[in-house]
Amino acid sequence: MAKIVVEVMLKPEILDPQGQAVGSALPRLGFTFATSVRQGKRFEIEMVGDPSESQMADIQKAAETLLSNPVIETYVVKVEK
Amino acid sequence: MAKIVVEVMLKPEILDPQGQAVGSALPRLGFTFATSVRQGKRFEIEMVGDPSESQMADIQKAAETLLSNPVIETYVVKVEK
Repeated sequence: MAKIVVEVMLKPEILDPQGQAVGSALPRLGFTFATSVRQGKRFEIEMVGDPSESQMADIQKAAETLLSNPVIETYVVKVEK
Repeated sequence: MAKIVVEVMLKPEILDPQGQAVGSALPRLGFTFATSVRQGKRFEIEMVGDPSESQMADIQKAAETLLSNPVIETYVVKVEK
């Protein structure tokens, strides 16, 4: 049983209103540590057994076509366990 | 310059319609590797210098109060770089 994690973040040049909202809420709550906040998505995909090479290619393709929008987002695929 | 990553996921017992939608879209697109998909949030917080112990406590508190809803979500705080 492997867990695939796909992390999707907006590209740095793309405006991130959700992250900005969090970034301006933090000081209002007394938290002054942050200089910038970006918000993205995280997918945890469970699969039976460890991914084969062709399954890894499939996962990359799914990340690119379904889980992210490559025009405005970047993604990272990680295999856990 | 440190990057703090806060990963927020719904608790396993909480229904995740977004993850389910992705999970049922995958086979429709010909991807059959997944047995389950959960979708969560990912925050990248930049700060100046490495976090002190009291700043780490602040980050934990912010993750618990602003970035996640502890009733239905769990969070993990990671320091990168």
